[in-house]
Amino acid sequence: MFIELDFESDIPIYMQLVHAIIEGIATRELKPGDELPPVRTLAADLGVNMLTVNKAYQHLKQLGFIQIHRKKGAVINSDEMRQADDEFYERLLTSLRPLAMESICRRLTKNQFLTLCSKIFDEIELKGGKC
Amino acid sequence: MFIELDFESDIPIYMQLVHAIIEGIATRELKPGDELPPVRTLAADLGVNMLTVNKAYQHLKQLGFIQIHRKKGAVINSDEMRQADDEFYERLLTSLRPLAMESICRRLTKNQFLTLCSKIFDEIELKGGKC
Repeated sequence: MFIELDFESDIPIYMQLVHAIIEGIATRELKPGDELPPVRTLAADLGVNMLTVNKAYQHLKQLGFIQIHRKKGAVINSDEMRQADDEFYERLLTSLRPLAMESICRRLTKNQFLTLCSKIFDEIELKGGKC
Repeated sequence: MFIELDFESDIPIYMQLVHAIIEGIATRELKPGDELPPVRTLAADLGVNMLTVNKAYQHLKQLGFIQIHRKKGAVINSDEMRQADDEFYERLLTSLRPLAMESICRRLTKNQFLTLCSKIFDEIELKGGKC
């Protein structure tokens, strides 16, 4: 799986890593039961600190996307382990609201915003998504 | 303007402040020409560091939402100063993509996601939005 990090971005590196792995799951490149590389290996491959990779894995575990086995390391969870719950909807709303706010300030209409979201979904589905 | 900060959140305080002020602009509570409180005053009111408020103001300036006058301090820009440009669309896509990815992984359909976005827009407009 190819992971591209942007060291100039405002988004912390561990979060970029979280996003990349979630993208891998969404597009079915990473399937339930697949093992992620060991922390040490991935850190070396990406040229980042081991603590950064560890933080990303812990975050993915907290979100229900992976389990961390003592022997196998980080393993992708089954689809059932990550259904949308109230906590997710709350977090999604908290993340979407400022984007909608800024879009309104920049005179995007609701339809323009929805069209953009729709395109993103279509792109992901073209890539093989639909967990 | 009432600003509520969540000190437990993963979102940095300066960014919460940026979101709150953008929300104020989106809902027309803050109008072009309005002056924001001086850094020192707002920091004291919110119980945060002056550097945090300063960082928020600098970020808002960079986004085109305010100007910083030597005498007046931070002043809300006119609507024309913050139209959606390519840089904004790029940033919006970068922010929306991981949310869509995670939603797909959690088995939200595109329609469910769009309905959620639509509701947020409706809520903001009810509050007086439409910059």
